[in-house]
Amino acid sequence: MHIYRFIDESGGVHYGTDYQDGRCNLCEGELFTGLTSTGRTVAVQRLLAPLEPRAILCIGLNYREHAAETGAAIPDEPVLFMKNPAALNHPDAPVVIPPRMVSEPEVDYEVELTAVIGRDARSVSVDEALDCVLGYTVGNDVSARRVQKLFGGGQWVKGKSPDGFCPLGPCIVTPDELGDSQALNLECRVNSQVMQQSNTSDMIFTVAELIAHLSQDMTLKAGTVLLTGTPPGVGVARDPQVFLKPGDVVECEIEKIGTLRNPVQ
Amino acid sequence: MHIYRFIDESGGVHYGTDYQDGRCNLCEGELFTGLTSTGRTVAVQRLLAPLEPRAILCIGLNYREHAAETGAAIPDEPVLFMKNPAALNHPDAPVVIPPRMVSEPEVDYEVELTAVIGRDARSVSVDEALDCVLGYTVGNDVSARRVQKLFGGGQWVKGKSPDGFCPLGPCIVTPDELGDSQALNLECRVNSQVMQQSNTSDMIFTVAELIAHLSQDMTLKAGTVLLTGTPPGVGVARDPQVFLKPGDVVECEIEKIGTLRNPVQ
Repeated sequence: MHIYRFIDESGGVHYGTDYQDGRCNLCEGELFTGLTSTGRTVAVQRLLAPLEPRAILCIGLNYREHAAETGAAIPDEPVLFMKNPAALNHPDAPVVIPPRMVSEPEVDYEVELTAVIGRDARSVSVDEALDCVLGYTVGNDVSARRVQKLFGGGQWVKGKSPDGFCPLGPCIVTPDELGDSQALNLECRVNSQVMQQSNTSDMIFTVAELIAHLSQDMTLKAGTVLLTGTPPGVGVARDPQVFLKPGDVVECEIEKIGTLRNPVQ
Repeated sequence: MHIYRFIDESGGVHYGTDYQDGRCNLCEGELFTGLTSTGRTVAVQRLLAPLEPRAILCIGLNYREHAAETGAAIPDEPVLFMKNPAALNHPDAPVVIPPRMVSEPEVDYEVELTAVIGRDARSVSVDEALDCVLGYTVGNDVSARRVQKLFGGGQWVKGKSPDGFCPLGPCIVTPDELGDSQALNLECRVNSQVMQQSNTSDMIFTVAELIAHLSQDMTLKAGTVLLTGTPPGVGVARDPQVFLKPGDVVECEIEKIGTLRNPVQ
């Protein structure tokens, strides 16, 4: 199932499936307890991020070549950081660059396979971990590189959390329909030019390993999203460097899920 | 006003004021839109953290002597990290140390003045910042030092976020009753022995400066809590080092707010 969250023409927020030609099959119920089709289709005014996450957990350096391009060592354990959930952004909504990051560009894109936790995960094994995943969406871990590296005392949260720096979408694809989450092509394009292109088979820690590891000490509660790291090709590591500027369009695409598109303002 | 959240004897969750002899004046309404007294008192079964935060933002190294004792430089800008909101814990509830942190002790206490954001703060000035604060509570930024320093790739989130590692309470004190938030004695005791003792006047960045700074790029939404850093005396910096172990009792006290007490299991 492909699950969309959207605003209808009267401003109501709903879940639906089978988004096509500007319409969705309308669902009733709750995302985490079960959606059922009403059998009716409704017009979509605009898509929303498929949920309001209760926490945004992110993994750093989870593709070998991305660790290499940033000069970081391959981590022995997953590197965890967070984004302020206020950074949430929506499909086709602008990523607004704060003025001081326009005059001195530093804002980067990062396509990431994003797992949506549907059931509290606490001390789960690698074998059990994926049972806690409701589905997968596409995340763009937009990053202010100077803030991340220089003005956070080494902590990445501040550079990762400006408003709008966490687009998610366009939908959640359930595991039965996605198949193997470690065999998905993913890429990021800026103004149609391919900047990142890889496959989730290149992850250092699989989604199941990440959830099992993190859940040993802390509960990943239903409604948490886990961005699982970005492949090589980020702008800060290119020569010359490429940073986002107003007028750009970023498209993050993951096989079997879809394309998360955001203009830059 | 001192605002408490509690469970009554039939299991209902309520807000109240004037907690005394096991009873509260019962309030109606919502924390962020306005509580009003019902005029009735009810028996409190147990206190809860005064809110379920939508995000837990934390400042590192915000007292000069604490920066010095940990060997860190005085930061030029506030150092921001986050705790998973699933780490929330309650007054008098146990801080449970994960088994591997019992055999090799590493769990530390950190008393912190904690601001509760009551109104979205976005691009506010230092002068406006405190208008966004609903009130203040006491936070204990419990920290697993080995995980924080060695197993997080330099990012602190993992060592700061085990379940139960964020006790908050016992109440929220409104600014009118608290007075100057930069003139409060605060201390932390372990088994009645004073381990940290300082005053919020020693902060490097005031609460107003922290909120103004952070809000330039990101919205601090109502329901966010901001732990404003810990004074010197943490266990990891003592000689010999002192780490929490089952059977200990930690008390974090801030003048005009109260004492947040947690046994360690």
